[in-house]
Amino acid sequence: QTDGDRLWQTLDEMAAIGPGVAGGNNRQTLTDADGEGRYLLKRWCERAGLSMGLDTMGNMFFRREGTEPDLEPVYMGSHLDTQPTGGRYDGVLGVLGGLEVMRTLNDLDIRTRRPIVLVNWTNEEGTRFAPAMLASGVFAGVHEEDWAKARVDREGKSFGSELRRIGWEGDERVGARPIHAMFELHIEQGPILEDEGVDIGVVTHGQGLWWLEVTLNGRESHTGSTPMPKRRNAGLGLARVTELVHETAMAHQPDAVGAIGHVEVYPNSRNIIPGRVVFTIDIRSPDKTVLDAMRERIERGIAEIAADLQLEFGVEPVGHFDPVTFDATCISAVRSAAEHLGLSHRDIVSGAGHDACWINRVAPTSMIFCPCEGGLSHNEAERITKPWAKAGADVLLQAVVETAEI
Amino acid sequence: QTDGDRLWQTLDEMAAIGPGVAGGNNRQTLTDADGEGRYLLKRWCERAGLSMGLDTMGNMFFRREGTEPDLEPVYMGSHLDTQPTGGRYDGVLGVLGGLEVMRTLNDLDIRTRRPIVLVNWTNEEGTRFAPAMLASGVFAGVHEEDWAKARVDREGKSFGSELRRIGWEGDERVGARPIHAMFELHIEQGPILEDEGVDIGVVTHGQGLWWLEVTLNGRESHTGSTPMPKRRNAGLGLARVTELVHETAMAHQPDAVGAIGHVEVYPNSRNIIPGRVVFTIDIRSPDKTVLDAMRERIERGIAEIAADLQLEFGVEPVGHFDPVTFDATCISAVRSAAEHLGLSHRDIVSGAGHDACWINRVAPTSMIFCPCEGGLSHNEAERITKPWAKAGADVLLQAVVETAEI
Ligand SMILES: NC(=O)NCCC(=O)O
Ligand SMILES: NC(=O)NCCC(=O)O
Repeated sequence: QTDGDRLWQTLDEMAAIGPGVAGGNNRQTLTDADGEGRYLLKRWCERAGLSMGLDTMGNMFFRREGTEPDLEPVYMGSHLDTQPTGGRYDGVLGVLGGLEVMRTLNDLDIRTRRPIVLVNWTNEEGTRFAPAMLASGVFAGVHEEDWAKARVDREGKSFGSELRRIGWEGDERVGARPIHAMFELHIEQGPILEDEGVDIGVVTHGQGLWWLEVTLNGRESHTGSTPMPKRRNAGLGLARVTELVHETAMAHQPDAVGAIGHVEVYPNSRNIIPGRVVFTIDIRSPDKTVLDAMRERIERGIAEIAADLQLEFGVEPVGHFDPVTFDATCISAVRSAAEHLGLSHRDIVSGAGHDACWINRVAPTSMIFCPCEGGLSHNEAERITKPWAKAGADVLLQAVVETAEI
Repeated sequence: QTDGDRLWQTLDEMAAIGPGVAGGNNRQTLTDADGEGRYLLKRWCERAGLSMGLDTMGNMFFRREGTEPDLEPVYMGSHLDTQPTGGRYDGVLGVLGGLEVMRTLNDLDIRTRRPIVLVNWTNEEGTRFAPAMLASGVFAGVHEEDWAKARVDREGKSFGSELRRIGWEGDERVGARPIHAMFELHIEQGPILEDEGVDIGVVTHGQGLWWLEVTLNGRESHTGSTPMPKRRNAGLGLARVTELVHETAMAHQPDAVGAIGHVEVYPNSRNIIPGRVVFTIDIRSPDKTVLDAMRERIERGIAEIAADLQLEFGVEPVGHFDPVTFDATCISAVRSAAEHLGLSHRDIVSGAGHDACWINRVAPTSMIFCPCEGGLSHNEAERITKPWAKAGADVLLQAVVETAEI
């Protein structure tokens, strides 16, 4: 079994890097803080006797040798980057839970036949550079590396230049690694496990997603002297699309969610009718038919709203994945691990996207969820308990060892 | 009569300072560009033999002596500051049209009994520091000077410190000047004059306004894994309030307008449900009863929307003026000037707020409107023609001279 205190202490140390303003973290991808977090992880892993690989997308791999080094390794891990106002556990638990597994294997002097690799995927969150799960997506062959490196943040800085700036661009070709199986431990980020008092979520599926970046162009004009019938108010367009996204998700309950998290209003002056808004719609469903129907309805609705308000519009997909079905063998490994440890568990669908969703396309993969308080995530107030974290790491240890074989 | 070519050339020279990105201007109040524009005006006025006064709010006064220096002067002017994506004429025409009047009086060697003063009021636009017409408001005793100087921009810089930084804080006490009458020449910023082919708007009234800064607090959480019923989506609140403001204005046609021009969404990440939005409602009417009814309906509606979406809310007025009735004598002076010059004219209500609206509380005041293309203002594409500008300056000259007496 893992050492819950040590894991908790390690989580605390990482949370000191890129602190937020309310107890969480702002360690966005490819910032200085991200670089610092990577150095800390590297130091810890070196001390645990692991050797590092670094690929050209900045994905970090720490290997513990197997007794049969030529066998394909078992992978575990997640991401260290956070939202701008993110929690301390989203992603981090999966990486540092994996480190705790490595440390426990060392303590118990357990040798596995297969090598075990701990991974930190670059830019899972997708806030600074859309889409989310960018580097695991390149690893899985979903995105071209050149395209990914050319993604820019709001200031126009590219992923590629920022990766080089913080000094974490490696030499290894992305996706060149054979993977026997991968397990990702993560907090649920939703309320189900806590509500039901269940220790472990055995993640069988993941929701699909569309991110649609919408631009509405109207006409900047004076809020006081422009008569109502002469207005082309892009802000009113934003309002109607916001309501449309909400209604569309509500029409497919409980199999859909939808919201707009990111909004830019131009020129953003109190007495100028917005001439232009740019915003990103986030819609998700575990059912591909529902997901695609939502997208279609929303795109149709945007066209109608734009026509009604005399706005020009554009819709550009900036993120997408289909619903995911994880690997049956990996799922079983997680379920038996929980059984074996006497932990309560239930099958669950992931509401969020995860690196595991991409890796599942190139290798057998599944996920382990632990509860989080109030289901709250993407919020600095995100919280878990030490026993929840330990239970998650224990299941990860068990599933990984079973799969890597003793 | 004024020299239309000279006026046009002067407008062009001023537009070179703080250029926008699309042919207009970004010469926001108390920026370096504002400082530069002030120096240019000062140089021009000095060359025209005018002496400058500068008060502690940065209001600039250029005096042409009268034959009876002890009589109260006649004032004319407007503002040089612009919107972030503003036009070249909004405010500027009133200042430089006044300069053209001074130059013409010099050319024709006309001596008036009363002194004539050209004024540039600080921070009319109110984008950087709310409310609009800030310094004329202090002059008219509507705002306390200390309060005005403590107004902060989005970066937390205060009006007072920025005024000192650009070097335009004077010694003169604000509001200490006696004013016999004031005339403000301005572009209409609406479509009426152009639509009707009329040269001159004789401004009899001004709309009243409320700016309400609204804060909605919900709960930041994950857009994917937070079930719809568990959301407290502040962005959805913004959408509903936007629609409410629009509907409320539509319910009072043609006597009302309303929109939201300024919006901040927090934390503004694609996959975080907005936990907080801050935005400013702008509602206006020429009828005080309508204006107050709108405010009441909107505040009631915000409370309902917030309750419905489980949001906390706050509403803070950040700008207000009641509808204005300008001075009958000044209005007549403008009307007779237009008649005298053989220009077509009509009475008109100002849709926008103007410094003249505040000065009207302490001295007889009225305004002269000239048309602008498509009624477009608060847009870099704001345009007028040289003949329109000249006609406006001619009426200003005539009205001022008649009032200052020869
Ligand atoms: N787990 C997680 O928060 N991933 C970010 C990508 C998403 O929005 O689902
Ligand atoms: N004239 C003008 O645009 N003034 C700015 C204040 C307002 O919003 O009316």
